Amino acid sequence: MSLTIVGTVAFDAIETPFGKTDKIIGGAGTYVALAASFFEKNTNLISVVGDDFPEDYLKMLNKQGINTDGIQIKKGEKTFFWSGKYYDNMNKRDTLVTELNSLADFDPVVPDAYQGSEYLMLGNLTPTIQRLVIERIHKRPKLIMLDTMNFWLDKTLEELKRTISMVDVLCINDEEAQQLANEHSLVKAAKKINAMGPKYVIIKKGAHGALLFGNGKIFCAPALPLESVFDPTGAGDCFAGGFIGYLSKTDDISFENMKNAVIIGSVMASFNIEKFGTERLLEIKPDDISERIQQFIDLVRFDIKKENIF
Amino acid sequence: MSLTIVGTVAFDAIETPFGKTDKIIGGAGTYVALAASFFEKNTNLISVVGDDFPEDYLKMLNKQGINTDGIQIKKGEKTFFWSGKYYDNMNKRDTLVTELNSLADFDPVVPDAYQGSEYLMLGNLTPTIQRLVIERIHKRPKLIMLDTMNFWLDKTLEELKRTISMVDVLCINDEEAQQLANEHSLVKAAKKINAMGPKYVIIKKGAHGALLFGNGKIFCAPALPLESVFDPTGAGDCFAGGFIGYLSKTDDISFENMKNAVIIGSVMASFNIEKFGTERLLEIKPDDISERIQQFIDLVRFDIKKENIF
Repeated sequence: MSLTIVGTVAFDAIETPFGKTDKIIGGAGTYVALAASFFEKNTNLISVVGDDFPEDYLKMLNKQGINTDGIQIKKGEKTFFWSGKYYDNMNKRDTLVTELNSLADFDPVVPDAYQGSEYLMLGNLTPTIQRLVIERIHKRPKLIMLDTMNFWLDKTLEELKRTISMVDVLCINDEEAQQLANEHSLVKAAKKINAMGPKYVIIKKGAHGALLFGNGKIFCAPALPLESVFDPTGAGDCFAGGFIGYLSKTDDISFENMKNAVIIGSVMASFNIEKFGTERLLEIKPDDISERIQQFIDLVRFDIKKENIF
Repeated sequence: MSLTIVGTVAFDAIETPFGKTDKIIGGAGTYVALAASFFEKNTNLISVVGDDFPEDYLKMLNKQGINTDGIQIKKGEKTFFWSGKYYDNMNKRDTLVTELNSLADFDPVVPDAYQGSEYLMLGNLTPTIQRLVIERIHKRPKLIMLDTMNFWLDKTLEELKRTISMVDVLCINDEEAQQLANEHSLVKAAKKINAMGPKYVIIKKGAHGALLFGNGKIFCAPALPLESVFDPTGAGDCFAGGFIGYLSKTDDISFENMKNAVIIGSVMASFNIEKFGTERLLEIKPDDISERIQQFIDLVRFDIKKENIF
């Protein structure tokens, strides 16, 4: 199949207790596309950068098989820049710098070659831009997934709800789900979000794994228990990318296959946090992914013989 | 096989956002024994009560097949009484009253009929009493498991560590594991606790499930996603009771079977929180347990065909 992604392509500067980086490639669109590209070989990215964005970075995305024709390069403008610092056990993050730059007036264009994509992923971005991309795709994709964050819940709630009402899958973390639904119980929150439009809701719980809700069913995926997290930047995006890339590749949007997709998303996130930025994603091979999938299988597999119990 | 449990048998008065109870039967020993009794038909309880303790409560335990010969009845003394109030989303609990009463000078006696038990469960209690029970059992059991809580970590850490060094399985919640090991990462904390003596460490994470560590392996069990928790009192004890009762019944202490035992523990805890006190435990039948086990299987089961991925 074919997968189109919209999301930021950015410069990030990251500081963690383990060290710090100069300006490196980041952004939700980058992480989603890289994670998805391991599965879906026909992956398209829509974004915007300034003319300070190195061609080598675009070539790197192309080398991973990602079509970057939908990345606008704005002359005389700079690329979106984010800088953040993680503390202690990576539970706390301060944003040090946010320079929107070329992202400020981003008007997304869907190249003709992207039209007809069966799968659409709206990475974390202004809800209005997410909606514009839906509207500019002529034929409704088979599945539209949206990721967002608390920033948009705080700033543009009504516009976000409007965009959410148009999608099939909402991917969100636990605190954001509680905020969006105004409900502490994640089960109740997921039901309320279902009623807002999305048939499927994925609630990411960081080190506690993820929950998938849909068709009146629940699937519970673990996170890989780790001694330490090196850099959490982009983990949620890699989760979303692995999820949608696997769905697009297998072209099966049943709840049963979405469970597999949640595991693939968890696998990709588990790699991403092992090194700074996109570094680990650019090292791993299909065999590494297969091995990690087996780790997830082993982590949760049990075999109770019910006839032996009573 | 045969299972011996030591733990409190108490009066509890519980208040939650859903209502409140008069003095009802409670205590770690009660919950552990009741949960275990569904699986191990040869379950023995060591505890102490005052002469205000209703004979009907003892008969209720006996009716569940629990041997109560090891429960001392102290003439002229009152039964241990605890009263607590839960707030909001059950995440916060205040202890309103703690009257040790007959528990204050509890000197545990192991009846002859209990000697030879292959499985020993040390429910949450003074670490010194837990140790005395180990010492008063003539032949070391095949498996000794210990549950504890932050109160003992705060008050009697060295004595607790001494008792922990004598057991095979430590069952503890996430914050307590972090406190005991002085380590934020649960993976690192479990390793440090392994080095203190227990070959197996179970870390309970409430609504996020439980982790089992041992033999260099990790098992990750979910909790049942719920719309609401009616009364969390005794959930951790029911988890421990289901775990040790299942192990004793199947008499298989391999890591593979301990994974099943963690699921059984999670099943028993999931029932217990549905009603006040021990009420739900006294209603359920083996068929209910089998059905709930199937819910846990369905909750985590996935079937990735690795050959379809790349």
